[in-house]
Amino acid sequence: MLVDVKEILRCGAERTDRALDRLLPSETRVPTAIHQAMRHSVFAGGKRLRPVLCIEAARMVAGTLEPPEGAENLAAAIEMLHTYSLIHDDLPALDNDELRRGKPTCHVVFGEAIAILAGDALQTQAYETLATLPRSAAAVVEIIRLVAQATGTIEGMIGGQVLDLEAEHHQPTAAMVDAIHRAKTGALIRVSLAAGAVYGSNAGNSGGTPDGGADVDRLTEFGRKAGLAFQIVDDILDMTEDSEHLGKTAGKDLASDKATWPAVFGIERSREDANRLITEAFTYLEPYGERADALKAVARYLVERKN
Amino acid sequence: MLVDVKEILRCGAERTDRALDRLLPSETRVPTAIHQAMRHSVFAGGKRLRPVLCIEAARMVAGTLEPPEGAENLAAAIEMLHTYSLIHDDLPALDNDELRRGKPTCHVVFGEAIAILAGDALQTQAYETLATLPRSAAAVVEIIRLVAQATGTIEGMIGGQVLDLEAEHHQPTAAMVDAIHRAKTGALIRVSLAAGAVYGSNAGNSGGTPDGGADVDRLTEFGRKAGLAFQIVDDILDMTEDSEHLGKTAGKDLASDKATWPAVFGIERSREDANRLITEAFTYLEPYGERADALKAVARYLVERKN
Repeated sequence: MLVDVKEILRCGAERTDRALDRLLPSETRVPTAIHQAMRHSVFAGGKRLRPVLCIEAARMVAGTLEPPEGAENLAAAIEMLHTYSLIHDDLPALDNDELRRGKPTCHVVFGEAIAILAGDALQTQAYETLATLPRSAAAVVEIIRLVAQATGTIEGMIGGQVLDLEAEHHQPTAAMVDAIHRAKTGALIRVSLAAGAVYGSNAGNSGGTPDGGADVDRLTEFGRKAGLAFQIVDDILDMTEDSEHLGKTAGKDLASDKATWPAVFGIERSREDANRLITEAFTYLEPYGERADALKAVARYLVERKN
Repeated sequence: MLVDVKEILRCGAERTDRALDRLLPSETRVPTAIHQAMRHSVFAGGKRLRPVLCIEAARMVAGTLEPPEGAENLAAAIEMLHTYSLIHDDLPALDNDELRRGKPTCHVVFGEAIAILAGDALQTQAYETLATLPRSAAAVVEIIRLVAQATGTIEGMIGGQVLDLEAEHHQPTAAMVDAIHRAKTGALIRVSLAAGAVYGSNAGNSGGTPDGGADVDRLTEFGRKAGLAFQIVDDILDMTEDSEHLGKTAGKDLASDKATWPAVFGIERSREDANRLITEAFTYLEPYGERADALKAVARYLVERKN
């Protein structure tokens, strides 16, 4: 199968953006300030990598040419969770970032109070979206359970943020960086793929694989490797690219003594690790044959990107 | 039926506290700071009024002597959502409160960063708890949908917080206070009852009423009236009681020009309104006969309490 990764990314991002626009209250809806703040951060130009991974996982497992109907709503819910974590992470009490995706961060534009509530509201809106997915109630409950675990405190996204805070101004160790990356960014990437697999295997009348549990396990392991590779590349880019190119404040990790992969292993070894992890990740996709080509292309893009 | 409201409140609070202790990660679990912060605020001595309303609604609709098994987990999830909103509401960027339920607030003890994340994590933990309720997947999805709506921006809890922020330092009007109360505290109280009704009507082999939808509608309307009465009494207590008695900073509403019921209607009229609302609320419980006695006693307590 010939795969155009740019087209996959563009298509997935467009699908996700349309879903987000449909699902989020309009800017004129009362109370307007919070809806403006939510949309400001959601539509600040993210690459929608997690949604694309989610949609492509659902499509691969469903075995269909088009993604299963409504998968873009699941993808949108995951992007809402990602954006909520960015808004709170950027707050003065946390990373104190004023620039994100090339635009002023939520609290800079709307004030801290509204930014805190906008993050809260995006988490809430994500669960409302998940609870109305057009899938069997059993599949929906399973997806919600997976998503809540992946964004929680035990090896999930919030837990990773706490570890990250605690690691600042300490000499980073390999174990520390590994634990932070697996939880802070890794868990949401893993669940984007795992939830996509549940969604795809529950695709009903299409050619979904019969062993939904095995799909979820394989996509979770794929996500574990690919997610770490993605974060290692993020760390490298923070050290080597300028702010304009990145759309966020570059060199910030170093300045704030963040625990990063290159800080522990150096840039060369980090590049090697990212490439090795992607190769290892691909082994979990072997059962899917050519159907995995799109997902592989996206994963390859994750480690070759320049911003 | 003879009803001992103190016993109902004590029993419901104990059930809820045991469930919270079982569901929340222990203080020694890594990362420890956030688990300590979550538990600090959850176990700061709340009266568990929402959980008690939830458990009693489930019991009444199920038509059983004991609450349906696992209802305390639903009640605990609702208390997690209530506590998350308090932690964020108390932050310096919002109400800047240093005392809550007689103890220093979360950010005073753990710092702002951990307090923000502890609030986030309690919301996440609430949905994980809901997704593992021992009920049919259809009932669980319905409960999650109701809870997410009630805590969101459109006439839900977060929307109410935004309206409250916007109303500060403006002359409060009746319409403004009504909208704030219905959303900020009213929505979570309504959904405590509505979700309890879904849980109770899905009680399986017990004597649950056949018309689950009608139960939810009736309990929602009961919650609408009782919830507003509860908040009016809260406003009166803030004006008339001292901080020690309340366990939080008294007179704060007046000092910060909060939109409150007595500020618009005066204390006497406010007392009358609260009593009238409870009487109106009771009409929705008529179909349940004596089975409603416990819930009525709790509602009556809500307007007669002194803290």
